[in-house]
Amino acid sequence: MNPTLGRQMEQEMAEQPRVLAALAEQLPDWTSQIKALTRRGVAGVAFLARGSSDNAALFGRYAVELHTGLPTCLIAPSLITAYGRQPVGFRGWLLVAASQSGRTPEIVDLARAFSAAGASVVSITNDGASELAAAGAVSIDVAAGPERAVPATKTVTAQMMAMTAIVSGLASVDLPPADRISEAVRFALEDRAAVAAAAEQLDGVDRVAIVGRGLVYPAARETALKLQETTGMMAHGFSTADFRHGPIAVCGPDAPAVLFMGAGPADRDTQDLVAPLQQRSARTVLIGHAAAPDIGLPDLGGAADCVLSTVRGQQLALALCRQRGIDPDHPAGLNKITLTH
Amino acid sequence: MNPTLGRQMEQEMAEQPRVLAALAEQLPDWTSQIKALTRRGVAGVAFLARGSSDNAALFGRYAVELHTGLPTCLIAPSLITAYGRQPVGFRGWLLVAASQSGRTPEIVDLARAFSAAGASVVSITNDGASELAAAGAVSIDVAAGPERAVPATKTVTAQMMAMTAIVSGLASVDLPPADRISEAVRFALEDRAAVAAAAEQLDGVDRVAIVGRGLVYPAARETALKLQETTGMMAHGFSTADFRHGPIAVCGPDAPAVLFMGAGPADRDTQDLVAPLQQRSARTVLIGHAAAPDIGLPDLGGAADCVLSTVRGQQLALALCRQRGIDPDHPAGLNKITLTH
Repeated sequence: MNPTLGRQMEQEMAEQPRVLAALAEQLPDWTSQIKALTRRGVAGVAFLARGSSDNAALFGRYAVELHTGLPTCLIAPSLITAYGRQPVGFRGWLLVAASQSGRTPEIVDLARAFSAAGASVVSITNDGASELAAAGAVSIDVAAGPERAVPATKTVTAQMMAMTAIVSGLASVDLPPADRISEAVRFALEDRAAVAAAAEQLDGVDRVAIVGRGLVYPAARETALKLQETTGMMAHGFSTADFRHGPIAVCGPDAPAVLFMGAGPADRDTQDLVAPLQQRSARTVLIGHAAAPDIGLPDLGGAADCVLSTVRGQQLALALCRQRGIDPDHPAGLNKITLTH
Repeated sequence: MNPTLGRQMEQEMAEQPRVLAALAEQLPDWTSQIKALTRRGVAGVAFLARGSSDNAALFGRYAVELHTGLPTCLIAPSLITAYGRQPVGFRGWLLVAASQSGRTPEIVDLARAFSAAGASVVSITNDGASELAAAGAVSIDVAAGPERAVPATKTVTAQMMAMTAIVSGLASVDLPPADRISEAVRFALEDRAAVAAAAEQLDGVDRVAIVGRGLVYPAARETALKLQETTGMMAHGFSTADFRHGPIAVCGPDAPAVLFMGAGPADRDTQDLVAPLQQRSARTVLIGHAAAPDIGLPDLGGAADCVLSTVRGQQLALALCRQRGIDPDHPAGLNKITLTH
C-alpha cells in the first residue's frame, strides 16, 4: 500500500462533494432552460460521448428513458466520422453531447452534424468557453475545476448529476436531493476501511466481472473502465440479466465478481447472483444496499445510486493501484484528451 | 485437442452455408414486406434482443444507421420489465425484435408493449410458429433448424443476414451477395489450420481483448460472448476507438488482443493498434483483411465482414474449447432459453 501514488486522482476524487454541492445550485436553472428548449415536446433524446463521458451518457440515457419512456439512443460516432454517413430525421430531437474538455474534435464535429440534422444540442462540458459549449443551445458547465489526473473522476459524477437536470426538464420528476448526495459522497470518501478490505479480496486478481442492472449499470461500466485504464486488470462491465445467462462462466476461483446493487427494483436480480457465483467458487464483492454489503451505500435511490456507486468504484481503483504499486495519475501510454478522428 | 468435444456446436456451425444460402432466397421477399410496411417512412428503428441475438441486433443497428442515417436504438429491457416504464412516442418507429426461440417471455412482452406504443414490429425468430413471430407485422423466420448446442452459432449469422433485408427495405441499398457469402463461409469453415494456429497463440491465456470497429464491432462483441460462455475466458469486446484511449492498458504479455478488420473505412484504425500492442508486449491475432492476417477473410465488405468475422470467432471458440478439454455443447450451469423477468 503506497499512499504517495495517485495523489492527483485522490485529490480530484476528494473535490466531488464540493463540486456536486455547487452543481446542485445550478440544477434548477438548467432544468428551466431544458424546459424552455423542449416546450414543444421532443421526439427523442440522443447522447454523444466517448470514454468516461460515455458512461455518464449511459446513465443519462437510462434516466431519461425511465422517466419519459421516449426513444433514447447512444450515438455510434464511427458511422459518421469513419463512414461519412450524415444523420437525418433528428428534427425535434435533443442531442446531449458530453465532453470533459469540450474540445474533443470528434464530439464537436458530430454535435454540429446533429444540429444541422435538426436536433437541439445540449452540451455538458467542464469548460464553458470550449467549442462544444459554444455549440449548445443549452450549455451546461459542470465547473469541476481542472482535471489533471488521467482517470476522470469528479467530472464523471458531475456529468451524471448534470443529466438529472435534463431528466427533470423533460419530465415532471423532482431533482435528486443533491445536498444529501454531496454529503453521502463525502461520507463514502472518508469510509476507507471497507474499500481497503475489498481491495484485499481482489489481491493478485487480474480479471474481474463488474455487474449491475438498471440505473447502476452505468456505474458498473464506469468502474470497469476505471480498473482497466488504471490497474490494467481485465475488468468487464456486465448487465445482470446478460451476465446470468452465459457470461457468468467467466467467474471462478481466480476471477471474482464485483456486484453493484442500488435501491431500485432491478437490483434484487443482482443479489440473486451471489448463490450461483458461490457455486462457481468465485469471490464476490457486494457494493450497495445488500443485507450485509462489503461496501455500503446510503439508501437514497435513483441518481444517487449511480453517483455513489461510481465513487465506490473510483475508490476501489485507487486502492488497487496503491496495493500494486501503480501510479494512476500517469498510466503508461495514455493521453488525457481523446482525439478520435 | 479433443475433436469429440463440441460435436453439436461444430455440426450447427457447419450448417451455416446451407442456412445462409436458403435465407438468401427469402431476402427479396422480406425486403418487399419491409418496404410495404414502411412506405409512409419511418421515424427511427429500435432493436430488441438479449444475448447473442443482441449482437445481431447491434449489427442491424449499425447497418441501418449507416445506410439511412435515421435514429436507431437498442432497447434496454430492464427499464420496462424491472422498473415498469411503458414506452411512449414510438409511433412511426420500426421495432425489430430478435429471439432464436421466439419464446423468450421478456422479448415477447416487450414487443407487444412497443406495438401498443405505436411501433410496427418486425420479428426475427428461428420458429415461425412462435409467439414472437405471431406478434410481428412482418415475421422473418430464419429457418435454421433446431439449435441444440448451448452456444448459438447458425442462428446468429442468420439473424445478421436477416437484418440486411431490413436495411434494403428502408434504403436503396442492394442486398449483400448472399450466395458469395454462403460460399465464403463454407471456405472459412474448411480453413482450419489458421484457426488452430491462432488457438495455439492463445494457449494458457485466461483474459483477452476482442477489438473491432464499425460493422465488425458486433462480431467482436459476439466473439467475446462466445469465448466467455464456452471457454470461461475473460474476453472483452471493445470498439477500436474506445480501446485505444484507455482500455488498451489491459493488454500485455499475458493478455493478448484479437483484432477484427473488415474491408471498410473504419478498419484501418484497428490495424493501427498493432504497434502500440507490440510496445506493450501483447500478442495479437489479426482476423480479416490485413496485409498478413493470422486468419484471413475474403474481401466482400459490408455485411459479409460481420458474418464472416462472426464465423471466425465461432471457430476460435471451438478450437480453444477442444484445446482445453471443455465441452461447449454443455457449459456448466447454463440454460438454453433465456427467461429474463
